[in-house]
Amino acid sequence: MENCIFCQIVAGKSPCYKVYEDDLFLGFLDIHPGTPGHTLVIPKKHCQWVYDVPEFDKYWLVVLKITKAIQKALNPIFVTYLTYGLQVPHAHIHILPRSEKNQSEVAPLQGFLEKEKMEEIANKIYKEVKKYDQV
Amino acid sequence: MENCIFCQIVAGKSPCYKVYEDDLFLGFLDIHPGTPGHTLVIPKKHCQWVYDVPEFDKYWLVVLKITKAIQKALNPIFVTYLTYGLQVPHAHIHILPRSEKNQSEVAPLQGFLEKEKMEEIANKIYKEVKKYDQV
Repeated sequence: MENCIFCQIVAGKSPCYKVYEDDLFLGFLDIHPGTPGHTLVIPKKHCQWVYDVPEFDKYWLVVLKITKAIQKALNPIFVTYLTYGLQVPHAHIHILPRSEKNQSEVAPLQGFLEKEKMEEIANKIYKEVKKYDQV
Repeated sequence: MENCIFCQIVAGKSPCYKVYEDDLFLGFLDIHPGTPGHTLVIPKKHCQWVYDVPEFDKYWLVVLKITKAIQKALNPIFVTYLTYGLQVPHAHIHILPRSEKNQSEVAPLQGFLEKEKMEEIANKIYKEVKKYDQV
């Protein structure tokens, strides 16, 4: 869809800090990270709601794969999943790695990290995803 | 686990407003509903984190089945999924049906409804789950 920012990212017309990609799904860092490593996982094909994505079980298995990569890359104490969907009308699952510092808020969603830090985190997760793919 | 409230519910030692049950998973209304129809889906076998549940994809397919039942029973404008996990150390996925009234808050988690209303809602969802099972 022309006016959808996530469709533009899928099409390579907007940049992203990519952590995962396959034929159906894309994972990248949230540009306003609620916690360091805050990742969004989206279907490449436009669809408004997570529960309307046809490959719903595959979608969550991709989330699981990225979760395991995040655990290795960032060593969070736990991980939160959230779907809300009113900011961008293209299905997205939030993965929020949690630390002692940010564990008390149920769903921290708005933060900021410098470009260099974002790149560093994205690369760390991406590398772990790749290792996981080779197993 | 002896001191786990969700294990007690699974064992039938504590009551719940049940909306779904199969061999591996149980769905019931959250006793402090953030929105009417706020449902928790848990694995019957104790496990702390959602992403460590061995049947992770089946787990989410159960969530999808309950989502479809909630859509028919309560007609929400959309549905939110959330996993947090610090209140009860037994994996649980929150399903939050959303209305115009409660759509602005990302994850409303603490509310109250009278017993009669809870029973009415649970029965409505349970009946839709059963219909879905017969298709």
